Amino acid sequence: MAQNIFYYYFQTPSMSDLSMFFEPKSIAVVGASTNPKKGGHNILKNIIKSWGKERLYPINPKADEVLGVKAYPSLLDVPEEQIDLVIIYINAKYVLDILKQCEKKKVRGVLIESAGFAEVGGEGKKIQEEMERFAKRTGIRIWGGNCMGYIMDGLITTFLDIKEVPVGGLSLVGQSGYFSGAIYEYVVTERKLGIRKACSIGNKTDVDENDMLGDFLKDDKTEVIVLYLESFKDGRRFYELSKEVSKKKPVICLPGATSEAGKTAAASHTGAIAGSASFEILESILGKQAGVVLIRDFEEMFDLAEGFLRLPLPKGNNLGIITITGAGGVVASDLAYQYGLKVPSLPSEVEEKLKTVYPSWMPPKNPADSWPAFEQHGVIPVLKTELEAMLSNDAFDMLLIIMASIKVALDFNPEIIGEYIKKYNKPIVMWITGEKEVTEEWVDRLRKSGGVAYDGVETSIKVLRKMYDYYLYTQKKDLSLEEIS
Amino acid sequence: MAQNIFYYYFQTPSMSDLSMFFEPKSIAVVGASTNPKKGGHNILKNIIKSWGKERLYPINPKADEVLGVKAYPSLLDVPEEQIDLVIIYINAKYVLDILKQCEKKKVRGVLIESAGFAEVGGEGKKIQEEMERFAKRTGIRIWGGNCMGYIMDGLITTFLDIKEVPVGGLSLVGQSGYFSGAIYEYVVTERKLGIRKACSIGNKTDVDENDMLGDFLKDDKTEVIVLYLESFKDGRRFYELSKEVSKKKPVICLPGATSEAGKTAAASHTGAIAGSASFEILESILGKQAGVVLIRDFEEMFDLAEGFLRLPLPKGNNLGIITITGAGGVVASDLAYQYGLKVPSLPSEVEEKLKTVYPSWMPPKNPADSWPAFEQHGVIPVLKTELEAMLSNDAFDMLLIIMASIKVALDFNPEIIGEYIKKYNKPIVMWITGEKEVTEEWVDRLRKSGGVAYDGVETSIKVLRKMYDYYLYTQKKDLSLEEIS
Repeated sequence: MAQNIFYYYFQTPSMSDLSMFFEPKSIAVVGASTNPKKGGHNILKNIIKSWGKERLYPINPKADEVLGVKAYPSLLDVPEEQIDLVIIYINAKYVLDILKQCEKKKVRGVLIESAGFAEVGGEGKKIQEEMERFAKRTGIRIWGGNCMGYIMDGLITTFLDIKEVPVGGLSLVGQSGYFSGAIYEYVVTERKLGIRKACSIGNKTDVDENDMLGDFLKDDKTEVIVLYLESFKDGRRFYELSKEVSKKKPVICLPGATSEAGKTAAASHTGAIAGSASFEILESILGKQAGVVLIRDFEEMFDLAEGFLRLPLPKGNNLGIITITGAGGVVASDLAYQYGLKVPSLPSEVEEKLKTVYPSWMPPKNPADSWPAFEQHGVIPVLKTELEAMLSNDAFDMLLIIMASIKVALDFNPEIIGEYIKKYNKPIVMWITGEKEVTEEWVDRLRKSGGVAYDGVETSIKVLRKMYDYYLYTQKKDLSLEEIS
Repeated sequence: MAQNIFYYYFQTPSMSDLSMFFEPKSIAVVGASTNPKKGGHNILKNIIKSWGKERLYPINPKADEVLGVKAYPSLLDVPEEQIDLVIIYINAKYVLDILKQCEKKKVRGVLIESAGFAEVGGEGKKIQEEMERFAKRTGIRIWGGNCMGYIMDGLITTFLDIKEVPVGGLSLVGQSGYFSGAIYEYVVTERKLGIRKACSIGNKTDVDENDMLGDFLKDDKTEVIVLYLESFKDGRRFYELSKEVSKKKPVICLPGATSEAGKTAAASHTGAIAGSASFEILESILGKQAGVVLIRDFEEMFDLAEGFLRLPLPKGNNLGIITITGAGGVVASDLAYQYGLKVPSLPSEVEEKLKTVYPSWMPPKNPADSWPAFEQHGVIPVLKTELEAMLSNDAFDMLLIIMASIKVALDFNPEIIGEYIKKYNKPIVMWITGEKEVTEEWVDRLRKSGGVAYDGVETSIKVLRKMYDYYLYTQKKDLSLEEIS
């Protein structure tokens, strides 16, 4: 059984060749409008900005040029024998005609951003079935329809007006246009994460999540993968692929439509028919066996993306807690217990080091309740002593720091956290509360220095736990590969 | 049995008289320092700002005056026969001497903000035991030690420098100074909640959570109560009291030290010996039987406080979802299922109304996937139609709105949400994502208009579920009261 699967996987590397989309040498845009309010206008604008005007062909029978680029009445009029990528943003009912032209122009990939296919049923469903047959017959890859294209450094194809692409290691796939729109803005402006490839794959007529995983596996610049999926096109292959990808980089997946109510909603959203299995079943298969980090909400998706992108993995489950408030230490200990992390006692050598900055009436412990020491020596000298003593000791695999952005703690310096993460290669997460403005400034500086802060103790602990689970997965020996050899 | 408990409860109303703290006619501050860096200086400064200088007596043997107020060498020198409230912020070892002076001056309440008592063990523990005996013998109420006093409109007693007290219906009790410090700043600046009484009760030598609950029960200005407790001084009484209070106003409780690790941490934080029972046991007793809203983290505490303070209770568990993204509708439906909320189909009369703004190829459903309609008519006309149709129908008890703060949706107007909450007396919560700056402005305006936005779909659904559970509790007939009559 295992052999068959691997045979299939290794024999079909071409499934993952998406270079016609990510590295096209020529692009035509069908529906490139001169009206700045239209999506087809934005598509062209984004391409010009990110990719350039050379070998770019707006298709518009009513205009001589669009955005300063010479336009052509139809694909067949383009003065090249072959076109790599055609982007379509016109009424669904004309799409099949355009596809015929694509075949004539030896197009390699077609990105269909128009809606009105399987997700609306009836005639739209029939058109999509025809598109699927076309892709199989011709080998021309079809991305979409009912999608919003992709955003990456060097090429933006979405119909929303995109300002900038901060470059980074996050590649995401959304079976929803939301991921090229509001979620994209959120990731960039609120989470300040850098993007490698942000992909909206819509109805998955042809190109699907498995193609994406295959591409991300080979793409060295992709460090962390997040997926929002309302269905699995080929569950078996997804399982095998994610099992492989997870060995190299984390795959964070939010499966939509895991309940009856969700399935009903998904059917009219992306035309997904079956939806996925229950969350629990997915967790037991994809989570436990294939290393996929499964989650239930969008915020959790980016909490984890931040953790994986910015922090080293914890190599054990022993949590050290440094806290400005006793209450935080208590709640963090309770939550650590709930999520199965250990809160070990301070080894005597660590205790001795902490005693040098703790007042005599306050014996240091884990959680390290640091307020009296902070008050006596200032935050930074105490924190340095604690970080050095705890991180250098094998008793601790990761740290949670609870800090208050209030006047009496304002000598805190977020950059110190990033320094110590690098020095000891152990993850440190923070929960900061207090004055909004100060908190925001600290969180920003923390991120720049290589640290992470979360909204709440529970979120912090949950992320550390999931990162540790993922670490355990990467350490597993792959029995199936051994069986094969 | 039930009779005994109520007998006890109704026979001891004086237990809840905390007027010596909340409405003192005279105050002395022992340890009122002339040094602006000292907590004792801030205490006096806060009192002057919030309460005034009349009948205020700084006690400081080394100064003639502090902050422009005449000082006295000792309590015994104060030129009044009797003093209502004495606040102490000096080394723990001198506290028993001061208490003797308090007895002589017929003091009604003593607030001890100094630390160094049961939480440090040894001599400190003995002093606290002595304080406890003193309170019992004399009837003088002791608040603290190892606490940070309280903050309310008209009187601020904490040793941190407090800028302002936005007045509102939230009363909170923290068995930790954090609640008068960073958490207080957070609640005020980030959550923008108005405060009735923010109380740090520290080691609970005498005044405890039960006194607080009794006070809040009688206090009409307290609308919502939040508690952080590391131990229950008298669990039976807490159960009976919270059962009563919960009938009138929600009691949100974060129990600390529900695990072994948490108990160890709590022992050195507030000297709490046993900690509380496991979270599950507390949930089955306090949650299920006494209506207490139990939670595990600080952020959750204020998510719920916001919900209860700003929104009407849902009177059923039928959730309507209006979303700018299909993906949001799918994930919200899955999470509703997970938390036991129903996502009913649109009744035909609602469907007909929505059809007037939906494109013909997009039949309206619940979740109401509104993007195509928004695109056609603008956000506000569509949203109004949806809100009116769904809220006016008995099929829906509450709404979740998922909105994107992106350019194409910028005609959205958060105030409309507040209007509709008032008009139909049903809760609406929002999850907004997109551009950070726009999101923040919308959340602010939403709050001002009487709405709430949460970080994430899961948080939104969780809050609605807990509010519905609380509603169910308020509808229960109280069998014990009937048994008595």
